[in-house]
Parts: sequence; C-alpha cells; structure tokens
Amino acid sequence: MQDTTIPHWLSKQADISPHCSAIELVNGQRLTFEELKNQSQTYAKKLADWGVKEGFHVAILSTNKQEMIVAIHALSYLKAVAVLLNIRLTKDELMYQLNDADVCFLIYPEELKDKASSLSIKHQASYTEIHQRHPKKIALAKEIRLNDPFTIMYTSGTTGFPKGVIHTYGNHWWSAIGSALNLGIHDQDKWLAALPLFHVSGLSILIRSVIYGMPVYLLEKFNKKAVHQAIINDGVTIVSVVTVMLQQLVEELGTNQYPTTLRCFLLGGGPAPLPLLKQAKKLNVPVFQSFGMTETASQIVTLNANDALKKVGSAGKALFPAQVKVESSDQTIGEIYVKGPMVTSGYYKKPEATNKILKDGWLATGDLGYLDDEGFLYVVDRRNDLIISGGENIYPSEIESVLSGHPAIKEAGVTGISDDKWGEVPIAFVVTNTQIAFDEVMNYLREHIANYKLPKEIHEVAALPRNASNKLVRSQLRHIRKE
Amino acid sequence: MQDTTIPHWLSKQADISPHCSAIELVNGQRLTFEELKNQSQTYAKKLADWGVKEGFHVAILSTNKQEMIVAIHALSYLKAVAVLLNIRLTKDELMYQLNDADVCFLIYPEELKDKASSLSIKHQASYTEIHQRHPKKIALAKEIRLNDPFTIMYTSGTTGFPKGVIHTYGNHWWSAIGSALNLGIHDQDKWLAALPLFHVSGLSILIRSVIYGMPVYLLEKFNKKAVHQAIINDGVTIVSVVTVMLQQLVEELGTNQYPTTLRCFLLGGGPAPLPLLKQAKKLNVPVFQSFGMTETASQIVTLNANDALKKVGSAGKALFPAQVKVESSDQTIGEIYVKGPMVTSGYYKKPEATNKILKDGWLATGDLGYLDDEGFLYVVDRRNDLIISGGENIYPSEIESVLSGHPAIKEAGVTGISDDKWGEVPIAFVVTNTQIAFDEVMNYLREHIANYKLPKEIHEVAALPRNASNKLVRSQLRHIRKE
Repeated sequence: MQDTTIPHWLSKQADISPHCSAIELVNGQRLTFEELKNQSQTYAKKLADWGVKEGFHVAILSTNKQEMIVAIHALSYLKAVAVLLNIRLTKDELMYQLNDADVCFLIYPEELKDKASSLSIKHQASYTEIHQRHPKKIALAKEIRLNDPFTIMYTSGTTGFPKGVIHTYGNHWWSAIGSALNLGIHDQDKWLAALPLFHVSGLSILIRSVIYGMPVYLLEKFNKKAVHQAIINDGVTIVSVVTVMLQQLVEELGTNQYPTTLRCFLLGGGPAPLPLLKQAKKLNVPVFQSFGMTETASQIVTLNANDALKKVGSAGKALFPAQVKVESSDQTIGEIYVKGPMVTSGYYKKPEATNKILKDGWLATGDLGYLDDEGFLYVVDRRNDLIISGGENIYPSEIESVLSGHPAIKEAGVTGISDDKWGEVPIAFVVTNTQIAFDEVMNYLREHIANYKLPKEIHEVAALPRNASNKLVRSQLRHIRKE
Repeated sequence: MQDTTIPHWLSKQADISPHCSAIELVNGQRLTFEELKNQSQTYAKKLADWGVKEGFHVAILSTNKQEMIVAIHALSYLKAVAVLLNIRLTKDELMYQLNDADVCFLIYPEELKDKASSLSIKHQASYTEIHQRHPKKIALAKEIRLNDPFTIMYTSGTTGFPKGVIHTYGNHWWSAIGSALNLGIHDQDKWLAALPLFHVSGLSILIRSVIYGMPVYLLEKFNKKAVHQAIINDGVTIVSVVTVMLQQLVEELGTNQYPTTLRCFLLGGGPAPLPLLKQAKKLNVPVFQSFGMTETASQIVTLNANDALKKVGSAGKALFPAQVKVESSDQTIGEIYVKGPMVTSGYYKKPEATNKILKDGWLATGDLGYLDDEGFLYVVDRRNDLIISGGENIYPSEIESVLSGHPAIKEAGVTGISDDKWGEVPIAFVVTNTQIAFDEVMNYLREHIANYKLPKEIHEVAALPRNASNKLVRSQLRHIRKE
C-alpha cells in the first residue's frame, strides 16, 4: 500500500490561481496565492539558513499575523513540524510543551520577544530576525505525503497532563474536504479567521484556503465591529465562531439583517445556549452548529444548510468521510465516538494515552450526547469536566494540580459555572492547611497558569465532595457554592 | 500506515440527504438517495442469493439504465468488483474480457439477453431475473476501504491486447474530489450522463453524485434534443460530452443562448477542433476542455471557469491532487506524464504492462503535448496511433490483428482519418495473398470486432510503409491513400 502523495498544496494553488487572494487583512492589504507561495518559500530558505530542516519540530508563538501563515507554510516546504503554541500560556506551561514536543527552534513576532526570551530554548528568532537572514539555496518540498506529520497542538484532556496532538497533512486534508462536502465550494467564498491560528479551529481555515483556492480574511483578534465590516462591506461568506462571539455579533446586529452573501457562521467550541440559537434563527442568521476537538482536526460533526433551521440545538451529522456513534447502556445518552481520516493517529510520544482514546479507528471523545431518530447528534455534556470559556478549553484537573502545589493548600476542586460573557468560567474550592488570602492564591496561580484559566472565585471548604472510591465529584462542587 | 476508511458512500449520502434526488430520468422519474440505497442494498442481497460474494468479479453488460446504477452500488455493498463491459463489442471481444477478468457472474438488461446468452459464461442473470430473487439475509459493507478494488474496465492501449484497468474506490474518490476542487460544489448542481456508464467518463458522474449529494440526470443514450430539454427545462448544470456531441449541441443551439444555470460542458475524449471551441466561446457556451484516460479514472487535467475562455484549445492544468509533466528532449513537445491518487495502480494480472507505463507514480500516457509558459497543457497528438471516434477509443493494432487473421490477408495497417460526424474514423490498408472482395473482408470483421471499429475504407496495397527496423509507420498510411 502506497502513501498518498499530492503536490504541495500551496505551490499547487499558486499554480492554479496565482492572482487570487490568499489572505486579506482588515486594512485592505491582500496577498495572492503566488505571493504567499513566494514569501513562504523564501521564508523556508531563510529558516534553513538558521539550521531548520526536515523532521525538526519548530514552535510558533504568535497572534494571527500574515507572517504566522507564511511561517506555517514555510515549515511545510522544509518538511519540518509546526508546534503551535497558545500565546496566553504562562512560561511554565509553554516550557512544558516545548520540552515535551522536542522543539528545537522557536519563532515569534517582535512584540512577543520578552515572552520568548524568558523561555529557555536556545534557538529562537523573531519574524524580523528571520526576514533579515539570507535565503539558503536548498531544494524545497514539491509534494506532500498525507501520512507525514505537519502540526502538533496541545490539549490537556481529562488527566491534566497536556498532550501533543499530532496532525498529519492527511488529517488536515480530509478535514478540509469533509467541510467542503458539507458546505459546498462557491467561487465567491471568503472565510473569516478571528479564532487563533494556534488552535485547530483557526488553522483549519488556512488549510481550506490553500485547498479550495479561497481567501482567508484574517483578524488579529476577534472584534465584533471588524467582523461586521468584513461581512457587510468586504464580502466575507463564512465565519468561524465560538458562542461568545456569536452572542456579541447577534447583539451588535440588532434588528438589521446580514447580506445574503453571508452563508454560514460555523459555530464550534462546545454546545451553544438554545435561546441564542433560536434568536439567531429568528434573525435569519445562518448558524451551523458543529462538534469537534483538537483530536479531530476541527469540526467532525456539523449541521448543513438544509438542516440548520430544522435542527436547532443539534451539532448535525458526521461529515461525509466521518462517522459518529453514541455508546450507551440504555440506547439514549452515552459517550460520543467518532471515526474518520481527519482523526489524529495519536499523541506525540504518549502511546498509552493514545490507546486509551483510540480503538479500531474510533475516538472516544469523553463527551456525552445522543442521536435523534434521524441520526442528528445532540451534545448534552462536555467531555468529563471540561470548562469552555470564550472558546478556550480549560481542564479543571490542571488548575487543581497547580493549586495543590501551594504549601497552604491541602486539596482543591475546580468546576465551571455559567457566565454571561464567556459562556463558562472556572471556580475553585480549596481545603487549606493554614489560612491564606484570596489574593495570595491568585498571585500564585498567575505565575503558573494562563490568565483565562484563573478561577473567578475561590471558596475555602472543610472537605471536597468525594464518591465511594474517594474520587472527587466535581459536579457537586457548584452545589457547595450554593449552600 | 493505515488504509483510509470512510463510511459506505451511498449509505452516507442517504443518511445526509435522504430526500434529495440521486437519479433523474428524462420522463420525470426520480429516485432519492434513500431509495437508491434501499434498492441497491436489496439488490445486493438478491445477488448474494445467486452466490455473489466478496471478491467476486461480476460483469455488467448494459446501456445507461437506472438498474445499472443500482447493480453497480449493489456490488460495492457486497465488496464484489464490477467489470464494466462495452455493449458494442462482439462476442469474441467480450469473451476475451470475461475470461481475462476472471468474471464469474454476468448481469444484463432483458433486451441484451440474446447477446448475454451467446457468451459462454455459466452464471448470468437479467435485471428482471435478479429482481425476482429473494434477498438473502447477509451483512452488507458499512465502510469503504479506499485501497480496495471497485471496478475493472478494458482499454487496449498500443499493444492491441485489451487490458483491464483496476480502479480502487480511492481512485474514484480522488477523481471526484479533484473535479470538485476544480468546478466547485454548488447546491443546485445536476450532472447529465449521456456518456456510457461502462466508460469511466460516464461512471465517474455516478461517483460524484453519491459523494457530492448531487442528482445524475441519466440518458440511455445521447440525443441532442433530450440534452437541450434537460439543460433548458430540467435545470441540468453540468454535462459531460465528447466532441461529436458538442458539435451537434452547438449546431442545435443555433443563435440561441443557454440559460445561466448551465455552468459547464466538460469536454473529454481527445483534442477538440479549434473552430468548434471558438464557436462555442462566441456563443457563450461554457466548454471546459479536459484530458484523461481510463487509467486516470476520467479527467486528470481540466480547464477551470477562469481560464476556459482565455485558453481555448488547452486541456488546462492538472486537477488539485494531480500533477502533469511533459518529457521532451528539446523542452517543447513531448510525451505527457501524469501522477496523482486517481491514477490506477495497474492492469489486472498484467504486471509487465503496468510496469511499462507506471514508474514512481508517474503514468506515461503515450500522448504528446506541451505546457505553455503559464503551465497549461496542450495535447497535440493522441497516444501513439489511437483513433477516437465519437468518443470511443479505437486501437489500430487491434483491427490489424483481426485483419491479419484472415487467410487471404498477408498484413494490414490501420489509421484514422478525420470525419465530419465522428471526429475520426478508421481506414485499413491490406496486403493480400489472394484476391478478396471488400464485402467479404467486412463480413469477416463484423464477426470479430465491434461495429464502431469497422474501417470505413479498405485499400489493397502492394506494401505497407515501414521504417528501417521494419516497423509499420502508420502515420504514412494516409499518404498512400492520397496517392
């Protein structure tokens, strides 16, 4: 059996559609596929001059910038693997990922120089420093083998240990094709990326762009006015959003209507509140709910245009190349399993963790849901105790583990509570050894975990709710708060 | 490395779009994807009752009928391989293919019963006979492994020995995806199939249909009025044609215009005359020329919407997952090579013939052409001496071989001459041992080769043009005729 080989996707698109827009920025700047290819190839040769080569793991710590896209494609021309770092993580969190992923080079924009310098990784360079380098004369990849690894992104899962999800080119390819078969491919499509490119929800837009020959409308960060401007004046047809963004957009829209050119808000990042979906439907806002995780290279179950209005609240059906099933003892709610060529083949250097979630191609998502009588998926509960706050995944176990590291804290429990702005926010419960001030705990936490993970409340309790096996029952934590 | 697995494509589409049209007939009849799935699954179980099972090679001898589509999908549910036979072949030609492909069962429509009965293949049944059978209770395929073989179709190539091209599910899948990335996928698409489904140009429309969730508008055979009716009144958006069809359609169109819903005539089957392409352009007829062969599972190089009018006469660029190159000593015209996951991995039981044309994934097409400075392919000459007549491939060597079998004929040479109606027709040159009448030769030929292959002229000559190595120089034959 042969590994499937295709031409390098950016080179190919530059050949087919040299003068079409690949990237559009809010200031009106645009880059064609030919320009993007040329810049990426030159960039690859400059990186090669720093010593980057095939098989190297190169981390990118960056906000959504054109240079980040160039850097990602450049790494593919070198057959190096891009490790995409969440810029909101603390130094400790980043160092864990850099070490775990065997990263040997770090790339970042000028404004993150301080953060990058604080990381003990010897070989690193800012975008500007790379640009100043001379391109090395080397041969670049002309083809892509779908089974080769392309990116690594970290996700914590339920164990509290972040694990590097390996995405092959094939995972990204099949994800893009699955999405195309669901949404169609229209000549005028333009996809807005306001989600971070270091998450698969953002990165997948870039991949679709090079495969479909479609411009990405890139925002450095989400801003409701900028998104509206892009939809109303700049012809954006598809926007990837998480609940908190959709909420703000619908609010901002008021009683107005979007132009008919807007054909899809692709909604990811956890179940959305039904009232919001109903309001969107009332306003003719085309919301396509979806379900996916880093391990599935973005959406793997998505509503389509025909069903978006009929099945409000459902995440839809598995994309064409994928399958979904729910395993339950009573034929109703159970764990959601998915299968398909977009699903990761595993975590980097974590065969045990991989084997735990992947069996015969089926991925145990940890999320609970059910299929209705027409086979539409409804997600009813997040993977175990996952908190999704403004589209970011927060794993209680991770915060608990840091809290328990403080000498004054004996044990800790973390759970999520609903929040008007962020969907959910974490709150913590601690059993202490000695008295300790809230501020002191928060300062300690700030040193170790990213800001978005900081608990909004910390409650001192006499004991944590535990079951017969002495396992923490996080679902009961919020009841303690109410008492 | 794992074999890529996807859900069974028809079951999947029936799940996603149960009530959408899968097949539409000229009489207004339609079949939804759910109905097509149910019929195909029942058909599979009936075939199983005849003993058909996984790995069996089952031949289908049929015109374009709904039952043929059902039979093809039924075989996929059984993991059997469909051997698709050209109904225009003679008994001898068919027997060669049936034996070579190890066919153990033959399916045909009632009206071809006589032809089928004349073939010495023990297990055979008409559509009606299969329908009357009781469905056997067996488990059907739920998934498709892309590396599994799905169809075998015969092509003669230059050696005169017909060879069975094996298409895996993956070859068909990638072909459909490559086409989608070129033409886009629009909600209202409806693809007209007037080309025979036993050719890959016709069959590929069925595969796109189940993958895109798009109706096939099926014609039993080409008829310019029916095609116009389908485009003008029935919303057909894409039509696969060969030159002779396009010619008739453009003639029939006169000074009228097609509705804007028609977005593509996908033109295959050999280079088209430039005057026709220019006239089509003048009339705003959207012709997308393409290049492909059975070995590439249909088109592999195709013009796109942007370039169709700019590059009249070109076959375009390789589809997204494919590559094309021209090998020549002087950087101009040379042999065309193609590569991509839609390219067959070889001929059935013919490793030598396979190795002759396939090296490192590159397929030597035998056709001559060049790439212009923007990388567009222009095909200047057919594979060796191939004659393309009304979209059917005719290999001179095959006719020569039959002619030489006649006791009165010492040697024979065949070439093509241009023909107003068919594009090209074969003519023959024979060196005789004893005198023989034209009619006698023709009667002899009719017994052995399909009608469309019959030479339109037979010239008796003293000697055939041969080169220094005594090899027949077919290109000089037409000059003898003029003398």
